[in-house]
Amino acid sequence: MADKTLDDLFHDTLKDIYYAEKQILKTLPKMAKAAQSSELKAGFETHHEETQAHIERLEQVFELIGKTPRGKTCDAILGIIEEGKEIIEEYKGTTALDAGLISAAHAVEHYEMARYGTLRTWAQQLNMPEAMKLLEQTLKEEEATDEKLSTLAITDVNKKAA
Amino acid sequence: MADKTLDDLFHDTLKDIYYAEKQILKTLPKMAKAAQSSELKAGFETHHEETQAHIERLEQVFELIGKTPRGKTCDAILGIIEEGKEIIEEYKGTTALDAGLISAAHAVEHYEMARYGTLRTWAQQLNMPEAMKLLEQTLKEEEATDEKLSTLAITDVNKKAA
Repeated sequence: MADKTLDDLFHDTLKDIYYAEKQILKTLPKMAKAAQSSELKAGFETHHEETQAHIERLEQVFELIGKTPRGKTCDAILGIIEEGKEIIEEYKGTTALDAGLISAAHAVEHYEMARYGTLRTWAQQLNMPEAMKLLEQTLKEEEATDEKLSTLAITDVNKKAA
Repeated sequence: MADKTLDDLFHDTLKDIYYAEKQILKTLPKMAKAAQSSELKAGFETHHEETQAHIERLEQVFELIGKTPRGKTCDAILGIIEEGKEIIEEYKGTTALDAGLISAAHAVEHYEMARYGTLRTWAQQLNMPEAMKLLEQTLKEEEATDEKLSTLAITDVNKKAA
């Protein structure tokens, strides 16, 4: 078997998060529709727009490594999204729905933070400053979204559910 | 349909992470066995011990809410672990294996950080200081493990692969 290097791992992981982002793009409107509070609804809508930009940045990174943008089934994101769907089904119409949606969204953000953090580190190791900058930009936005979710969780949404 | 409150959501999410921790406990020895560098191997072994303590703490939280410790299939962790297995299979014997294992472990830690962060916030909202303390303790350990992984990723493991 031929050796596999960090370049291969970078490309494989790029395909993983590219697939994941596309799944997230499809899921966010469903979460926005399900959300009860207007703040949470708006948060999901904003993140939907950001996700489109994240996908475009990933396409730029594919270009930088001379590859065609292509996704690879990501079991992790499928599992995370499945749990979000369960929340919507099981908590629909209840006072705890928004808290559950925030929890599901936190899991999504954390998965993305793990992947973008890893890819950024590898881009640095592989001496690809442009790719690193693009990945870093998205990582910062995912972290900011995660922070916003934490604030929402601490304030009104949970107080209502408690 | 009866209303569901934050208490229900707390209990459901506790079952989710309890199942996840037990899956992680089974997976860590496989990751330690696969790891090439002695530091990474040792890291997985240490985290295996910590995971046993995390499970015990979760059992204490179940007791605090008067419930029997019981898991609930967590699709998210199953997907995340599946991706780790793929790394072991696809990168076995290659120079990028350890970097891939670290990446997989990062995804596991981030999932746990999302869940423990959420549960801690809810424990606070639900006025359960003891549960909050236990969840906070584990959260800090998961964050420390994540930090250690980042350090390992930046140092020798990736340099070897690059």
